[in-house]
Amino acid sequence: MTRFSIPDGSDFTLANLPFGIFSTAGTAHRAGIRVGDFVLDLATVADEVGFDFDSTVLSVPVLNDFIALGRAKTSAARAQVKSWLEKQVGEPVDEQHFHRIGEVSLHLPIRIGDYTDFYSSIEHATNVGRMFRDPENALLPNWRHLPVGYHGRASSVVVSGTPIRRPIGQVVGSASQSPGFQPSERLDFELEMAFVVGKDSELGEPVDIADTEEYIFGMLLFNDWSARDIQRWEYVPLGPFLGKSFASSVSPWIVPMEALEPFRVRGPEQNPEPLPYLRTEENANYDIELSVAVNDRSVCRSNTKYLYWNIRQQLAHQTSNGCNVRVGDLMASGTISGQRPDSYGSLLEITDNGKSGDFLQDGDTVTMTAHAGTGKHRVGFGDVSGMVLPARVISR
Amino acid sequence: MTRFSIPDGSDFTLANLPFGIFSTAGTAHRAGIRVGDFVLDLATVADEVGFDFDSTVLSVPVLNDFIALGRAKTSAARAQVKSWLEKQVGEPVDEQHFHRIGEVSLHLPIRIGDYTDFYSSIEHATNVGRMFRDPENALLPNWRHLPVGYHGRASSVVVSGTPIRRPIGQVVGSASQSPGFQPSERLDFELEMAFVVGKDSELGEPVDIADTEEYIFGMLLFNDWSARDIQRWEYVPLGPFLGKSFASSVSPWIVPMEALEPFRVRGPEQNPEPLPYLRTEENANYDIELSVAVNDRSVCRSNTKYLYWNIRQQLAHQTSNGCNVRVGDLMASGTISGQRPDSYGSLLEITDNGKSGDFLQDGDTVTMTAHAGTGKHRVGFGDVSGMVLPARVISR
Repeated sequence: MTRFSIPDGSDFTLANLPFGIFSTAGTAHRAGIRVGDFVLDLATVADEVGFDFDSTVLSVPVLNDFIALGRAKTSAARAQVKSWLEKQVGEPVDEQHFHRIGEVSLHLPIRIGDYTDFYSSIEHATNVGRMFRDPENALLPNWRHLPVGYHGRASSVVVSGTPIRRPIGQVVGSASQSPGFQPSERLDFELEMAFVVGKDSELGEPVDIADTEEYIFGMLLFNDWSARDIQRWEYVPLGPFLGKSFASSVSPWIVPMEALEPFRVRGPEQNPEPLPYLRTEENANYDIELSVAVNDRSVCRSNTKYLYWNIRQQLAHQTSNGCNVRVGDLMASGTISGQRPDSYGSLLEITDNGKSGDFLQDGDTVTMTAHAGTGKHRVGFGDVSGMVLPARVISR
Repeated sequence: MTRFSIPDGSDFTLANLPFGIFSTAGTAHRAGIRVGDFVLDLATVADEVGFDFDSTVLSVPVLNDFIALGRAKTSAARAQVKSWLEKQVGEPVDEQHFHRIGEVSLHLPIRIGDYTDFYSSIEHATNVGRMFRDPENALLPNWRHLPVGYHGRASSVVVSGTPIRRPIGQVVGSASQSPGFQPSERLDFELEMAFVVGKDSELGEPVDIADTEEYIFGMLLFNDWSARDIQRWEYVPLGPFLGKSFASSVSPWIVPMEALEPFRVRGPEQNPEPLPYLRTEENANYDIELSVAVNDRSVCRSNTKYLYWNIRQQLAHQTSNGCNVRVGDLMASGTISGQRPDSYGSLLEITDNGKSGDFLQDGDTVTMTAHAGTGKHRVGFGDVSGMVLPARVISR
């Protein structure tokens, strides 16, 4: 008989309780909470726990309807589950409620409406500007005034574990101005975090930065796969398109903002001071340790707290023109690089654009991890991993 | 007693039969076909007409499930409705099936997954490049090799008639490098067409250009509202963001590709010849006359046939890297300008960036129209109109 416990060092302590969508063999996709090495089947504990909402929102294949209940209800539900779980510790595992993590499949947890990718790390933006534009003026004039961002492709966001097919596209070699159509030779990852929108806003009505918190449900770990050679040829003047849209990978677990509250820290000093609509309180950043490995080799250790622009500023900026957001929208941070080369969040930066190392090879697996805190207070996101598959044969 | 007939000069002849979503006072949103001055309530004729699918797809507030039946079924359904309507001509109007256009509300006809905006008019791209970059090299090197495009915001796509709130955003005056936060002073329209994706593709599997037709359900008329001053400051290096995302307006009617088949024409010569994955048969463009009025003043007459890159090339390019598409995705053409100034599709071009005229004023109404053919063969899209509302008061 197995008794319920949480292994030492687990990302999924009682302080975490992230939400996801899972299934077991032959069953429907439904909502779960990860705890230790188990997934708790949420709808099955509805009566025991006593949720104050209709638990059918937990028996559907995406979390959008649950998230749309609002921060007050989802936060209360998580607190109720936490109390219930505390009583389970040391008790026999009830297999009606708990599934071993090795016996479930994990799925994309939300139906994403719109996906935005920001560019909020000053170190990353500076590194890229230095390589591709003017080393003396690596940061563009707008960068310190607003969180630069662009709209990405929602359809190709996939859950961790999904293999990534090397994209084919137009690439211009150094000797020519005419593009070829070939598999990308500069396939890269980008280490990012993303937040999930938890409340609809109205078209034409900006979300005031003081109110942004109620619009943010939780965070994910995010790999914004990038094909540098395709991106390079296409991106002027309208921005990245096919160099990014072939895939982005997310963690299966959305960590609710409640679990991240203890890890709030002050962000980098912002100079010049942001315009009033972008001014946040102190401690609007999060101290979350990040790492990337290619196969078994560690290539990056970074931290979410390095981000120059924080998630409240991103959301306030996104809606400042009246653009509406919807539950399930995803906003990613952009590559999170630190100051030292071993904290750079992409191979583009790590290898100095391929001069001191390789981009990704077929068969490589990229694994990202993220966690905050230690011991019983540890809050982790689980891996975001993906293996690179060879490009398809070009049919014409 | 009213007898069923189609007025002379109607956009909505029996050759058209576009699909939309409507409601009447106190009733649910549901599928309709516009014919003459009536909207046919599709689900109510299911038994009489004898659709070979479950008509519940017609009783829901978006057309996605109907469209997902596939071109073969939706095309057959339209042909069945056409035969049935032909028998109605001259008969008393059955108010169980027909609603007068003045008595219905029209709604956004699809749930849009992803929205892409292309930049496929060579005249528009040249005009913009001449104004903002190098007049001697107005077209960027990539432009003739691929249909340049970027991902736009799906949440803020609205149906014709929705008022458009003037956006507020960061703007840099000519005398300063520091931005202010203020209502846009350069609010513009962009005359575009868009197509609606009619079939899901698989992630990692490009859609061959020879197969694109089955993935395209129909077309819409599209106004890509733009705030030139916001766009100018934000768009380097990642492309347009808040300068576009505050709103885009679409026609309430999706004209199925079957109705546009008689209007296929050859497009402009493409030089250099596109790479093999972008090579289409001849006659892949459409001869659709376009017009724009600001209030009652005509400001532009253009034509969809001017587009350099056609919709099959846009779809093949979008999926060439393995990016998947989904039923209801929207792909817009970019501003459709012709060679003569009276065919320019934006005030940016018409006024030479404000030198010879004004951008949009509060209270202005922009109305776009599109149609092909004449008399009984006329196929129109209805208006896309929107009135400019004053900016909100800035709260901080």
